[in-house]
Amino acid sequence: MTQADRWMLPDGIAEILPADAVQIETLRRRLLDLYHSWGYELVIPPMLEFTESLLVGMGRDLDLSTFKVTDQLSGRTLGIRADITPQAARIDAHSFPRAGANRLCYAGHVVHTRPRTAMGSRAPIQIGAELYGVESLQADIEIISLMLESLQIAGIAQIHLDLGHVAIYRSLAEAAGLDEEQRRELFALLQSKASADVQRWVQDNVTDPQVAAWLRALPGLAGGRECLVRARELLSGAPTELEAALTDLQRVAEALAQRYPAVELFFDLSEVRGYDYETGLVFAVYTPGHGQALANGGRYNGIGAVFGRDRPATGFSSDLVSLNTLGRAAIPADCAILAPLAEGAEGQSLWRTVEELRRNGEVVIATLPGDAEAEVQSRCDRELVLDNGDWVVKPRG
Amino acid sequence: MTQADRWMLPDGIAEILPADAVQIETLRRRLLDLYHSWGYELVIPPMLEFTESLLVGMGRDLDLSTFKVTDQLSGRTLGIRADITPQAARIDAHSFPRAGANRLCYAGHVVHTRPRTAMGSRAPIQIGAELYGVESLQADIEIISLMLESLQIAGIAQIHLDLGHVAIYRSLAEAAGLDEEQRRELFALLQSKASADVQRWVQDNVTDPQVAAWLRALPGLAGGRECLVRARELLSGAPTELEAALTDLQRVAEALAQRYPAVELFFDLSEVRGYDYETGLVFAVYTPGHGQALANGGRYNGIGAVFGRDRPATGFSSDLVSLNTLGRAAIPADCAILAPLAEGAEGQSLWRTVEELRRNGEVVIATLPGDAEAEVQSRCDRELVLDNGDWVVKPRG
Repeated sequence: MTQADRWMLPDGIAEILPADAVQIETLRRRLLDLYHSWGYELVIPPMLEFTESLLVGMGRDLDLSTFKVTDQLSGRTLGIRADITPQAARIDAHSFPRAGANRLCYAGHVVHTRPRTAMGSRAPIQIGAELYGVESLQADIEIISLMLESLQIAGIAQIHLDLGHVAIYRSLAEAAGLDEEQRRELFALLQSKASADVQRWVQDNVTDPQVAAWLRALPGLAGGRECLVRARELLSGAPTELEAALTDLQRVAEALAQRYPAVELFFDLSEVRGYDYETGLVFAVYTPGHGQALANGGRYNGIGAVFGRDRPATGFSSDLVSLNTLGRAAIPADCAILAPLAEGAEGQSLWRTVEELRRNGEVVIATLPGDAEAEVQSRCDRELVLDNGDWVVKPRG
Repeated sequence: MTQADRWMLPDGIAEILPADAVQIETLRRRLLDLYHSWGYELVIPPMLEFTESLLVGMGRDLDLSTFKVTDQLSGRTLGIRADITPQAARIDAHSFPRAGANRLCYAGHVVHTRPRTAMGSRAPIQIGAELYGVESLQADIEIISLMLESLQIAGIAQIHLDLGHVAIYRSLAEAAGLDEEQRRELFALLQSKASADVQRWVQDNVTDPQVAAWLRALPGLAGGRECLVRARELLSGAPTELEAALTDLQRVAEALAQRYPAVELFFDLSEVRGYDYETGLVFAVYTPGHGQALANGGRYNGIGAVFGRDRPATGFSSDLVSLNTLGRAAIPADCAILAPLAEGAEGQSLWRTVEELRRNGEVVIATLPGDAEAEVQSRCDRELVLDNGDWVVKPRG
């Protein structure tokens, strides 16, 4: 490896330099403060755990995304976290159990073996909130509200909220009597939005004409709130579970339209994202011009069962780096004060003045002997000068 | 693996639950704000990099501490960072180069394959500051000052500062004409503070009687400021480099005693910590009753050379988790306001009141249908009640 290559970073792994870092840090604080103000308590799970804890109940995608190493102390396999949600679920189930609602939030690095999208990052900074122990729709509405407010704080102007419900596909797959393999096949077709293929597959595999008609209707049931009305007609007579899912979607839409009238609502009844572990409402937010969801989440009841405690769960998460890139909440760059070199008694009174200024929130940069200085000076719009024996702050000429 | 084991964490890997997490987060912000107020700019390096970048110039200990994985995209070896300092050095050398002083700070998880001390953590949260591009002692004094102020902010009452200088051992080893293997042998004896073994080794290996006398004196040269006076006598006539190191220690001690009179200064002239990469002053802070250093650092010029830019460098780092455990800066737990369930117009005015309270820094927790509630209520000392059509905050009875 040559010298010139040593500073290369792996594809999809970025370092964050000061101009962006200060923005991301500010956004991080604002979001954690937001979650705190809603009663969400911060947890800091570790960067790596036994894979048995980290991957359980979350499906094969997470497994493939997770770097594995051998623990030199136990000889067992450790995973470097690719998602913080299962860690929060473990904490709710075991380390920090509560009888009722448990509101947790977190922010931290995660790492993926491969980018999830072409040119995507393998090192997002995941931030999110999870609400355990409450089954009611109000919990989902709270989580979606928090997700939308996160995007507002990040300065994302136009927000599109996508809503779906995995019970819709699940109940129809059950009514059609599909076995596991068939469910996966149809699932894959729905996921790739291959409407014609869905039609053909249903014709070949589903014998009940009523259920077949419902399944064929799914790919077309996407759009604004009018889509729920069409769904009531086209899916009339469908299993109770499906009816209940439509009612949930309707109620969530009403609550959110009232709270956040500027947010555009979009429904996709064939949405099957997270089908491996999601159990109810699923949601994602988009902004025009950016193909990937900026934040997403859903209900994932029961994930705690593997840790010995089966609890209702709903939550969302996002990537601070993407939020910062797309949002750019205006954070003013602050200007600094330059402190000169001084010795003896003058140096001591300078030191006291500098410490006082710093405690009051000013940035004071000390001149250092032997420093080329040019760049430090460009960050300073003021300087400390000795005026009648007192150190005072003056504009730099 | 049984259900009951799934929530076990690997030895030395801890998760941080809300009571500690809020303290650590507060401390993290205060320290980053402190560094900011001194002109240090935040960088966020990635959790993993090519090992060629991560391990270069930092000695074999870091290599052994670093978990390695294979990059599925390049087939090359990645290391999960066990130290952020080399990442900061890479950034100074290449991604964020400045002609003069470059002040960088950071905070983030690191991971070690094995604990560095018995029962030690393998997952510290490293926080620190590095100052590149300035050779002068003022730069070291700035970094040590920042380290001491970090401990004060963390609420560490009694601070002992250990100072050493690797040029002392290095110049004597050179004067004695020791080869690399001999240097390592004597180094190991000095490191283990095995004074009698040092005497014997020197007798067997160093022929020049004057140099042998200097080397034999080293283990005894530890203590308060009087130790520098003794050193001047016992090491009189020693190489210029050694004399200069003693002068540096003297000057640093004077500057720090003036700035931080409550800090106890301790010198150890046989200190060889970081001999692999440190090049000048080395420093560490201790508090009574805790055997491990709470923060440490030193001058490590030249580390950037492997990235194509050889720069003076000095810095320190610490572990947020230990600082929090030992310091416990008093952070008041805040009490929350409970918001009841409300529907229709009342629900809408409640929502507006709640959002207003949250924006003003209050924690407001919404009641959720189906929540067992007991624990949420215990966090709330006030509640929102409807009074003549207005939602008002009242103490909870």
